[in-house]
Amino acid sequence: MNHQISTSRIQQDMELFEQFTSTPGQGITRLPFTVDVRGCVTKLTERMKSAGLAVYEDAAGNLVGRKAGVYPDAPALIIGSHIDSVKSGGNFDGMAGIIVGLEVVRMLRDAGITLNHPIEVMATHDEEGMRFGTGFFGTKAMMGEVDEEYLHRYKDADGVSIYDAMICYGLDPHRIKEAARDYEREIAAFFEVHIEQGPVLENTNTQLGLVDCIVGMQRYMITVTGRPDHAGTTPMDMRVDAMDCASQVIAQVSKLAVEASSDSTVATVGFAKVEPCAMNIVPQEVTFSLDVRSKKQQDIDDIVAKVREELTRICGEKGATFTVDEKLNTAPAHLDEKLLKQLYQSCEKLGFSHRRMCSGAGHDALQTAPKIDTVMVFVPSKEGRSHCPVEWTEYSDLANAAMVLADTLITNYSKGGQ
Amino acid sequence: MNHQISTSRIQQDMELFEQFTSTPGQGITRLPFTVDVRGCVTKLTERMKSAGLAVYEDAAGNLVGRKAGVYPDAPALIIGSHIDSVKSGGNFDGMAGIIVGLEVVRMLRDAGITLNHPIEVMATHDEEGMRFGTGFFGTKAMMGEVDEEYLHRYKDADGVSIYDAMICYGLDPHRIKEAARDYEREIAAFFEVHIEQGPVLENTNTQLGLVDCIVGMQRYMITVTGRPDHAGTTPMDMRVDAMDCASQVIAQVSKLAVEASSDSTVATVGFAKVEPCAMNIVPQEVTFSLDVRSKKQQDIDDIVAKVREELTRICGEKGATFTVDEKLNTAPAHLDEKLLKQLYQSCEKLGFSHRRMCSGAGHDALQTAPKIDTVMVFVPSKEGRSHCPVEWTEYSDLANAAMVLADTLITNYSKGGQ
Repeated sequence: MNHQISTSRIQQDMELFEQFTSTPGQGITRLPFTVDVRGCVTKLTERMKSAGLAVYEDAAGNLVGRKAGVYPDAPALIIGSHIDSVKSGGNFDGMAGIIVGLEVVRMLRDAGITLNHPIEVMATHDEEGMRFGTGFFGTKAMMGEVDEEYLHRYKDADGVSIYDAMICYGLDPHRIKEAARDYEREIAAFFEVHIEQGPVLENTNTQLGLVDCIVGMQRYMITVTGRPDHAGTTPMDMRVDAMDCASQVIAQVSKLAVEASSDSTVATVGFAKVEPCAMNIVPQEVTFSLDVRSKKQQDIDDIVAKVREELTRICGEKGATFTVDEKLNTAPAHLDEKLLKQLYQSCEKLGFSHRRMCSGAGHDALQTAPKIDTVMVFVPSKEGRSHCPVEWTEYSDLANAAMVLADTLITNYSKGGQ
Repeated sequence: MNHQISTSRIQQDMELFEQFTSTPGQGITRLPFTVDVRGCVTKLTERMKSAGLAVYEDAAGNLVGRKAGVYPDAPALIIGSHIDSVKSGGNFDGMAGIIVGLEVVRMLRDAGITLNHPIEVMATHDEEGMRFGTGFFGTKAMMGEVDEEYLHRYKDADGVSIYDAMICYGLDPHRIKEAARDYEREIAAFFEVHIEQGPVLENTNTQLGLVDCIVGMQRYMITVTGRPDHAGTTPMDMRVDAMDCASQVIAQVSKLAVEASSDSTVATVGFAKVEPCAMNIVPQEVTFSLDVRSKKQQDIDDIVAKVREELTRICGEKGATFTVDEKLNTAPAHLDEKLLKQLYQSCEKLGFSHRRMCSGAGHDALQTAPKIDTVMVFVPSKEGRSHCPVEWTEYSDLANAAMVLADTLITNYSKGGQ
């Protein structure tokens, strides 16, 4: 096998796509159904075609470049990640996985290898959910989970629905169901290479992460309501201080996650808002977010239950009230052990340091994993930073992922392999 | 003695001055050096004159109505409170004390009583500090603590200095020092009747509060700085979560005040702001206020020291940093025991329920107390509400305060008295 993965080709492509942003000089802003994605798709189509792929855009705006395998009717092996970004994000989140897929296909072509299965490089659309407050749009549509009602339901900050945005973008929303694939017959595996967006690989000096699960996640917005009073004239025993109650609950959140059974378990209060928020007024209301993630569902349930219990106890003692509004609730997704073993063997063979790990962020793989054999490979994020312009991954790290992926495909899915 | 304090006269006057607001229908907004104060001063001048007082406006915009005593050179007894308001405040905060003073003077006139000392009803200017971020302007000027530099130093939100505002208002800022009084020779006592602005009198069903001190106050803005990280991808042991640190400190604040030695001690975190304040980002920075008040200086110092200690300990453990920015630091002011005894005796004689209490809010009396024999009388605030349009005190409660004040003056400062 002649693994001619090219770091410089990866770098050229990565730099080529930096131009598709609505915030030049301030990171990548490539929101779905905008001219920025359209430009990116047009350029990516060129690159895919020059890599020998047949390219089509599906009804949801996913771009698919496909090369036939030895057995044309075999289900496809997909290497995919998302083409859209957050606001003022980095150039690696999503795009890195697409370019790695493209490089794998180029390497196979250069090496004259045709896999047994068709191979597809897929640029999924609207994974981040930044514009419409949703997420995973392209893969949901691929899995048959988006209908016309969905397209009308979600609107952006200007009141434009996905439905209307699709029309402007040049897609026919009536045909959204055509994006659904007969995945049981058509798709053999879904591989996603993605930047880690966290510090673990860098801190442990590990080249590649083999992602065996995507954490389950529960998100809540919690409001504690007390009574606004003059901070000077109201004795302590006549107050119902929403801040006092809320802070006693918030102060326990990190500790609950640290003490949880799985070290994948994290809990965060990232958002908080105080009303009326004046130095000299006892707070009437504190609203705060609770974000709990773990690969162990029980850990999530335990932490959320404990927070509810403490809210009940503390607010009860002080005479405050509270509401808990669920915003998100997804179960942990376990990725495919057969694919993990294949990637493990390729890492060992090629001499890359690696570790199994859990993804703390959601990914398209979360949508595909329940129905399609799915796996993810993480590459290190410099200082763990992501969703910001300084987001960075070494191009050589992307090449490492491409090498492992190529080796796995050749070893397991070609005649030259086992 | 014929105590003819008239509740209906008090009510008429209180209602008369409701018109001087820049936010009609939305509470009283009577900011210093505005046409709203000017209108109020003009009308109050009329009312003072018709009560038999000689009226003058001093160089700071304080309005003084004076009636000579039996001994014209004796130092004056002043009954005063402030004429300005907060934004969209109530009609009682400040104005109630002026009208009570006016009613006491009318009652003395009707009863044919001339006190030994001159009596003055004083409407102080810019107590609230709402426009220039200062406070106690009129009484500070009276005590000789305001100079021209001060007038230039403070500006309102439009960049207008007190100096310029004085010119527009019709005062000569060069003459500000003329507002200073030779208080040792000229002033015998300063009485301030004020709404409680808290719930204690109402909750304890007490008619009058005899204020023996004004709490000392320390105010800080505290910033805890950690590191912003992805809330999903950053393991608990790799975080520096500013919210986790801050909440553990904030959660102790109320408890420290409850456990303090004096039941006058209160502590409040009324303001808090989180950066970047997103559900899925570990907070980088939490800024929060700390407001501690007590009649016992030691309690204040102890709580602030404990908060600093906990900040040091908790941030140290987690790798966060913090800053503590002092915003305000005033010592407790103890009011005059001789005057308190006189008021106590009048309450007992007239059969009003009363309690000694501490003022948790700052007042003009805070400025006068260190140099002039000063006392305050509190009247109940409905539901403890103040600084809002629903602020309310029964007119009969104002009449009670006027009766006690009149009795104290007649008993102690007239020939008909002791």
